[in-house]
Amino acid sequence: MGPSVVPIPTFTNISADYFRKHIYPQRFPALLRNIDIGECSNKWTADYLTEKIGDSNVKVHVSINPKMNFTEKNFVYKTLLFGELLKRAQKVKQDLFFLSPSEFYYLRSLGADPRGRDVADIKKQFPSIAEDINIPDFFQKEDFFSSVFRIGSPGVQLWTHYDVMDNILIQVRGRKRMVLYSPDEALNMYLTGDKSQVLDIDDPDVERFPKFLSAQRHECVMNSGDIIFIPALWFHNTLALEFGIAVNIFWRHLNYELYDKNDPYGNKDLIPASRALQMAGNSVKALSTLPEEYKDFYIRRIISMLESNIKNK
Amino acid sequence: MGPSVVPIPTFTNISADYFRKHIYPQRFPALLRNIDIGECSNKWTADYLTEKIGDSNVKVHVSINPKMNFTEKNFVYKTLLFGELLKRAQKVKQDLFFLSPSEFYYLRSLGADPRGRDVADIKKQFPSIAEDINIPDFFQKEDFFSSVFRIGSPGVQLWTHYDVMDNILIQVRGRKRMVLYSPDEALNMYLTGDKSQVLDIDDPDVERFPKFLSAQRHECVMNSGDIIFIPALWFHNTLALEFGIAVNIFWRHLNYELYDKNDPYGNKDLIPASRALQMAGNSVKALSTLPEEYKDFYIRRIISMLESNIKNK
Repeated sequence: MGPSVVPIPTFTNISADYFRKHIYPQRFPALLRNIDIGECSNKWTADYLTEKIGDSNVKVHVSINPKMNFTEKNFVYKTLLFGELLKRAQKVKQDLFFLSPSEFYYLRSLGADPRGRDVADIKKQFPSIAEDINIPDFFQKEDFFSSVFRIGSPGVQLWTHYDVMDNILIQVRGRKRMVLYSPDEALNMYLTGDKSQVLDIDDPDVERFPKFLSAQRHECVMNSGDIIFIPALWFHNTLALEFGIAVNIFWRHLNYELYDKNDPYGNKDLIPASRALQMAGNSVKALSTLPEEYKDFYIRRIISMLESNIKNK
Repeated sequence: MGPSVVPIPTFTNISADYFRKHIYPQRFPALLRNIDIGECSNKWTADYLTEKIGDSNVKVHVSINPKMNFTEKNFVYKTLLFGELLKRAQKVKQDLFFLSPSEFYYLRSLGADPRGRDVADIKKQFPSIAEDINIPDFFQKEDFFSSVFRIGSPGVQLWTHYDVMDNILIQVRGRKRMVLYSPDEALNMYLTGDKSQVLDIDDPDVERFPKFLSAQRHECVMNSGDIIFIPALWFHNTLALEFGIAVNIFWRHLNYELYDKNDPYGNKDLIPASRALQMAGNSVKALSTLPEEYKDFYIRRIISMLESNIKNK
């Protein structure tokens, strides 16, 4: 069933210079081991973090189902103290809970005012521990966009999506399974915006998503201390095999003008792309005065025209 | 290789009323036999037509290759007397010729000023013989759009294309093979505008056109006196098995406002469809500032969005 799994290539003990020269230009995912990520490797115990930043309020996803589902919104947002989140996310049964004693927690840290232009930056939101983590010199300092805490219960699985920026995920603690798909698989992903509608990638609904079986799966398991490079547009799905603490660093590798200025999450489509999507949406609307058969026909004609514009088939 | 051929359903001795009630609403091709097409059945010999309209000038396609190719333009337009066309199109070797003694001829009659709004109408361009043909009452008189002479040498094959109007082809003389494909096959036809790039439908270039093999082929052979109903948007390819004289009747079955006013051939896309195609073309242009990989990616995203808008998958 479906194509075999391709392992994501692993590079051990490489320098930042090697990354920039030999890995980065490939625009292909890479698992990096034995990179110096700083003192966080040893220091970031739950006790230490609780002592340092335990009193910060954080907004977390809480769900009964570990497979968080963005269409059915099977999770709620709740505000917790960071210390309380750490306590709960390490356990599988809760004494204090919102929905059920077996609920799951997931934090994606935010900027102070995430509705505006304020992006997640550990240095700003958690300055007392920011120096513990060493962000490798994989990109120009000025291209830095955000650094995001990702902390979750064992079993938490995040829907498959893409980001418009290059990024690395630094898995400080806990094992995590990463499954990636190339941007060239976009037509096999059944996208709604930046998200795949295929929620169970391990047992997909093949009636609804027959083409998903054609998508080549790239996979690796990250251990504590590993870094994965996720190039922009690569679809990714994460599954926490253990309680995990990770830091995700995003940076801009294209002309800054191309990025949406109001995008604290760094996942809004590039400005020309948003415009193109909107124009294409309007082209469908323009067909609305036609009978159904004509509408379908001309949507296919447009698709056919678009297909002929794809360079790398 | 490819799907089997589905025969186009044949209806014999049906009334115009039966056509309107039971065949027309299906929007599916139909071969109609034993319809009263008038005296043309017996009268339209080459001698008779030469006597009546032989001195009219007509513009014909002339080609060395019987498979007329619109991309390589392997034909030239030449003006001939109707009588001379009839003489030549009945022979396979010419004494007088433009390109070669074995050249092929094909006439698609035009209005007096085909650049303007003047459409082909046998009643106007050939009034002395127009009464010989009985156009069945398949549609409201006021919806009539054009009547087109189609006369050609044996072996002439016309590229696969669609028209935006419903039409019937009245095959007055000569056998003709008709191959049709449903509008739902648009993505398998490799279209350029209204034309399929697959020129040899019997031996397609499967490297270039792999999906063409998935297109279900509907086929019939018309004999003298037969009529075929070709619903709007159905792709069709004609192959003259003998010297042939046919009259093609087009009519408007949608709100007149939807049709392009400057369309003497009746094959311009409907106004909202042209607009939609243009907007979609602009959406591709909007992506031009992005790197290639992003451009391809977002074209696929647009395709994915469009696919989700197709009702009848």
